[in-house]
Amino acid sequence: MLRVDGRQPDQMRAVNITPHYMEYAEGSCLIEVGKTRVICTATIENRVPPHVFGTGRGWVTAEYAMLPRSSQQRIVRDGIRGKVGGRSHEIQRLIGRAIRSVFDLDRFGERTVLIDCDVITADGGTRCASITGALVAVGLAMERLRAEKKLSIQPLKAYLAAVSVGVVEGQPVLDLCYLEDAQAEVDMNVVLTGRREFVEIQGTAETRPFDMATLLELNRLAGEGIGRLVELQHEILGLDLERS
Amino acid sequence: MLRVDGRQPDQMRAVNITPHYMEYAEGSCLIEVGKTRVICTATIENRVPPHVFGTGRGWVTAEYAMLPRSSQQRIVRDGIRGKVGGRSHEIQRLIGRAIRSVFDLDRFGERTVLIDCDVITADGGTRCASITGALVAVGLAMERLRAEKKLSIQPLKAYLAAVSVGVVEGQPVLDLCYLEDAQAEVDMNVVLTGRREFVEIQGTAETRPFDMATLLELNRLAGEGIGRLVELQHEILGLDLERS
Amino acid sequence: MLRVDGRQPDQMRAVNITPHYMEYAEGSCLIEVGKTRVICTATIENRVPPHVFGTGRGWVTAEYAMLPRSSQQRIVRDGIRGKVGGRSHEIQRLIGRAIRSVFDLDRFGERTVLIDCDVITADGGTRCASITGALVAVGLAMERLRAEKKLSIQPLKAYLAAVSVGVVEGQPVLDLCYLEDAQAEVDMNVVLTGRREFVEIQGTAETRPFDMATLLELNRLAGEGIGRLVELQHEILGLDLERS
Amino acid sequence: MLRVDGRQPDQMRAVNITPHYMEYAEGSCLIEVGKTRVICTATIENRVPPHVFGTGRGWVTAEYAMLPRSSQQRIVRDGIRGKVGGRSHEIQRLIGRAIRSVFDLDRFGERTVLIDCDVITADGGTRCASITGALVAVGLAMERLRAEKKLSIQPLKAYLAAVSVGVVEGQPVLDLCYLEDAQAEVDMNVVLTGRREFVEIQGTAETRPFDMATLLELNRLAGEGIGRLVELQHEILGLDLERS
Amino acid sequence: MLRVDGRQPDQMRAVNITPHYMEYAEGSCLIEVGKTRVICTATIENRVPPHVFGTGRGWVTAEYAMLPRSSQQRIVRDGIRGKVGGRSHEIQRLIGRAIRSVFDLDRFGERTVLIDCDVITADGGTRCASITGALVAVGLAMERLRAEKKLSIQPLKAYLAAVSVGVVEGQPVLDLCYLEDAQAEVDMNVVLTGRREFVEIQGTAETRPFDMATLLELNRLAGEGIGRLVELQHEILGLDLERS
Amino acid sequence: MLRVDGRQPDQMRAVNITPHYMEYAEGSCLIEVGKTRVICTATIENRVPPHVFGTGRGWVTAEYAMLPRSSQQRIVRDGIRGKVGGRSHEIQRLIGRAIRSVFDLDRFGERTVLIDCDVITADGGTRCASITGALVAVGLAMERLRAEKKLSIQPLKAYLAAVSVGVVEGQPVLDLCYLEDAQAEVDMNVVLTGRREFVEIQGTAETRPFDMATLLELNRLAGEGIGRLVELQHEILGLDLERS
Repeated sequence: MLRVDGRQPDQMRAVNITPHYMEYAEGSCLIEVGKTRVICTATIENRVPPHVFGTGRGWVTAEYAMLPRSSQQRIVRDGIRGKVGGRSHEIQRLIGRAIRSVFDLDRFGERTVLIDCDVITADGGTRCASITGALVAVGLAMERLRAEKKLSIQPLKAYLAAVSVGVVEGQPVLDLCYLEDAQAEVDMNVVLTGRREFVEIQGTAETRPFDMATLLELNRLAGEGIGRLVELQHEILGLDLERS
Repeated sequence: MLRVDGRQPDQMRAVNITPHYMEYAEGSCLIEVGKTRVICTATIENRVPPHVFGTGRGWVTAEYAMLPRSSQQRIVRDGIRGKVGGRSHEIQRLIGRAIRSVFDLDRFGERTVLIDCDVITADGGTRCASITGALVAVGLAMERLRAEKKLSIQPLKAYLAAVSVGVVEGQPVLDLCYLEDAQAEVDMNVVLTGRREFVEIQGTAETRPFDMATLLELNRLAGEGIGRLVELQHEILGLDLERS
Repeated sequence: MLRVDGRQPDQMRAVNITPHYMEYAEGSCLIEVGKTRVICTATIENRVPPHVFGTGRGWVTAEYAMLPRSSQQRIVRDGIRGKVGGRSHEIQRLIGRAIRSVFDLDRFGERTVLIDCDVITADGGTRCASITGALVAVGLAMERLRAEKKLSIQPLKAYLAAVSVGVVEGQPVLDLCYLEDAQAEVDMNVVLTGRREFVEIQGTAETRPFDMATLLELNRLAGEGIGRLVELQHEILGLDLERS
Repeated sequence: MLRVDGRQPDQMRAVNITPHYMEYAEGSCLIEVGKTRVICTATIENRVPPHVFGTGRGWVTAEYAMLPRSSQQRIVRDGIRGKVGGRSHEIQRLIGRAIRSVFDLDRFGERTVLIDCDVITADGGTRCASITGALVAVGLAMERLRAEKKLSIQPLKAYLAAVSVGVVEGQPVLDLCYLEDAQAEVDMNVVLTGRREFVEIQGTAETRPFDMATLLELNRLAGEGIGRLVELQHEILGLDLERS
Repeated sequence: MLRVDGRQPDQMRAVNITPHYMEYAEGSCLIEVGKTRVICTATIENRVPPHVFGTGRGWVTAEYAMLPRSSQQRIVRDGIRGKVGGRSHEIQRLIGRAIRSVFDLDRFGERTVLIDCDVITADGGTRCASITGALVAVGLAMERLRAEKKLSIQPLKAYLAAVSVGVVEGQPVLDLCYLEDAQAEVDMNVVLTGRREFVEIQGTAETRPFDMATLLELNRLAGEGIGRLVELQHEILGLDLERS
Repeated sequence: MLRVDGRQPDQMRAVNITPHYMEYAEGSCLIEVGKTRVICTATIENRVPPHVFGTGRGWVTAEYAMLPRSSQQRIVRDGIRGKVGGRSHEIQRLIGRAIRSVFDLDRFGERTVLIDCDVITADGGTRCASITGALVAVGLAMERLRAEKKLSIQPLKAYLAAVSVGVVEGQPVLDLCYLEDAQAEVDMNVVLTGRREFVEIQGTAETRPFDMATLLELNRLAGEGIGRLVELQHEILGLDLERS
């Protein structure tokens, strides 16, 4: 069976990461996964939120938003609605949690890495592209801090990337585009380290419950996709983070 | 190894469900899981949100909140903060999604089931208790609609319950209390139907990534816990929903 | 004339107060007046609002909210509306003012007693039940502070309780249930100390103005009701606060 | 004992009402009570809020605000704070309720009278001045509707005015200025019809509880003050509303 | 051609400025331009916003609002809408910027002048009247600070006033009233110093673009109007601010 | 005198416009002016705001926002602040007004053109780049509507572009970059049609007032810059809009 855009079940879309995409941010990239485009930036702030203040530790947090015309139907801006929507909240919490899991907060000092993920075009998989791009933006920012002698260690403990997998017309597939996502029976986002250990798994039965065999097959596909993404991250960052 | 409250790794806390707890709601219960207490109500409204309007289908949605002193540290009310917090948003989206997965929206007419989950006391596992209690509240509301001849079919297609599982001090355990949750290395919420098929799985590595063997053991524990919760739901509702 | 629920004009509904209802609060109770149920908690915070800061004095404040299905018609949450409604504002200001009138702020130190009144079921008289229950929650919190040697004096200077009175079908009555409240010609809330002195009186002509004789008869009824509530408070708290 | 501004205990400040103060409003006045100045306007809208819609009845509502420099300490604008404060909410609910009590909603049609009370200078008694001025603004708007043949009956059923009374240094006094209000032991606002029947009574023990004798004396003073205010309203409106 | 209110093209409406209009503000006036009425106050605060903090310099800022019935159609309050509208934002930024341009922030110390402009009646030209009145309110506040020995220099460096000009039915005119403003082809606000130098020029083609000759004629008219306004300011303030 | 980036006083930065930059919008472009980058999109909606509803006419409106790291200092998102800031409000009002001035609302039907301008990188002149890019996005959207036979006429009546001019170190210059903007004595934004007629002129004396000669010289520079921008617009759109 061919997929809607002609791919094989285990085939990812073309992925491209352009580092240093933003003039002013400490670290940044543009990540493109098929038509999906996300700008990821990492900002370093010399302060921490109240729940960390005074502990000597650092913090990593994230914000996520979509441009109004990143999607088919224009999205009302959060600033007009007066608040961040539930979906965006959920995604930015996920991004922050994922990056923190491979970031040595204890050895970063009382500083914050603030990640911004802004979706230019949304054709499915924006949260996974955001996580994958955020790791690169944070890595570049760390390298800059180290070059400026503001940091002696490398706080990143591992590579980390994310892909979506799902069941479409009964077939487990890797890296769903929007059309597939809209009709998927099962939708799952998987975040793995370079060693293919789980950092986050979020699976939802959209139209019918699924069994353990499906869970295992979806994770096999995810592992393959993430392997390729981590290779790409390594090409750009060139850091040796126990990737093997 | 004994757990902090003396339980075995695969032992749930005492669970109690009091049906018809609220005077006015169409369906309601108080669910107690150890010290955790949640009031769940189901309200029937003869209207649907814009994205369903005109389709002839129904909708199920949920809201979740904690009383200020449901926890050790007093929680600032959403009404004072002027918005629903990110964590509450995430949880109420999960509750609504889970119940919808076993609810026949096509045959309910243009009506909405609005679920309210209000946490009286929070000692871990409030989102799972909310889902498990919500299924009962919705079931009672459906029985009432049927008794009032406002509904001819049973829209619930299956029982559905949720438990938390996690890794605490290297040991996979079932149904974490707050103290365990705060120090867990891995935290996972699993939502299964009465047939033990997945509706939702959300696992997070809090302090270190985990492997596939851990994923499988956690799911085994979750399956056992949910089996007992579904039995309790069946005792109260007495509905034959392909539970086997 | 019998009232809608069969009571005599000067007869209160059954009142029950369950102390220590909440696991974590410094002081708490569940107060039930007929079907009306309110959870009252007292939280002690080691800080004061700006207008008290630096004076060496303490503060008492209150928040009031209703669960969505505490009433016949589901109430939209403040967190969804993005603000506390006018009625809730008015009631919580009243609760705070009433408790402050019998609380020795000068001898409490720069600490705040934050009262939360959350209505589980509303069948009329929720603001009066809140005040009566709040006095108990605060009394229990003070006893706990004294037991922990964090307080040497008793800041409560008197017992304090509240009842609603009103004119229904031309008849002055005590402790209106919701059905009576909805059709009352005159509606009055009275807050008295254990010595039956006025702390607050709020009377409103809902459908027609009333005269001085009515004002006096309503206050006689209120005095009787409050006498019984203060006896109940004394049974629970056992404090000798010049109650006579 | 002379009061802070030399008045006798039962002496009101100079009261002046300037009708037609606003160019565009259907009815308006400027009311001055000593240094206190409030602009009151009545706007007629050909629609009613949802809870009245379809009943054939009308509605009366009010909004109240203070200019930032109406008081000694500059007040932050509601528009900056993003919401109407609790005190303003309470006052505007009181104004609306008071005017509705003498307004024949049944015979006004599905129209709304929207009252705006904007405080230019606040030297105590702004809510009472607002009610007294609002009655005049509404009366002028009704006369205009009648002159334009948009209304055949007079919906106002009675005159209505309000004064503050209180206990200052042990002495019951009428019409408190700001300095007196700030140090009052008891503070009470009374709203009476032209026939001196109660529409609203709100009494608060600020520093110590008060007894029945005080309640009666304060009401005697209020009755005298309101008598004079109603005479002034009658001079301006010239309506025969069973004032005797 | 006669204008809608009978004026000549270069004729301003009657202008009146009442100084010390507000009881409590450090400086204040009521400015009337035809039917347009604006209360302007200047409040002195011993603090500065974050972007100035620690620089030893002062700050001047402004807020602008309209009373609900200042205009034909009642305006919804910012406090009800939960935010300051775009038009008000734009006007208050303009007022602050204009006054700062003639105010010596370097020699004022870390204090803020907070200007409030509240429109009582709006018949066109409210932003210009606000600027012209604000200069007077600030001047009076400075004189008061100097009289109280809290200020040794005069921070105002020049007089400053504003007028609207525009093209109505092809004719350039000075000081548009509301009816003219509503049908103007070109609308321009000009802020000049006493020496007739530009501080701000904002011109908009409402219905058709305009050429350089029109720009010059409109500025000639504006210069004449502002000359008369500055004379009036000088009569009230009596300060010698290089007005020639 | 050379400028900070080596340009001549009357020299613009390199300008590049990439049409069809966004996958889903009806019309879009990326405009680059030096390092400044803005994405402009035009969305067509088959509805109009209330003040136009029922008139048979169309509407054009705009929204403007900056990505958090578009500037040196990270900008807090409007969605986090809960509202659109004053500066953004002012700019989006300007964009909408400018495009409306060359758009035939009468012949567009009851539809809305919603323009979104999102700043990717801000190095001065973002509001002018937004206007210039918005004209292109709207032009492309109109061509698409015409190709789809949804529109028979061309609603655009003229080309329209904007540039900033200012006085920097005493020298009038064209197209200020951020460093120049920050130190400019005079800052002016000019919007002209292809025929070089004024649509909007907004000039502000930042540090000292300016005279008529400066106003004229700044407008001469603006005219030259806009001439080049309109040529570029014509190359892309190829429409004959009385550009001469």
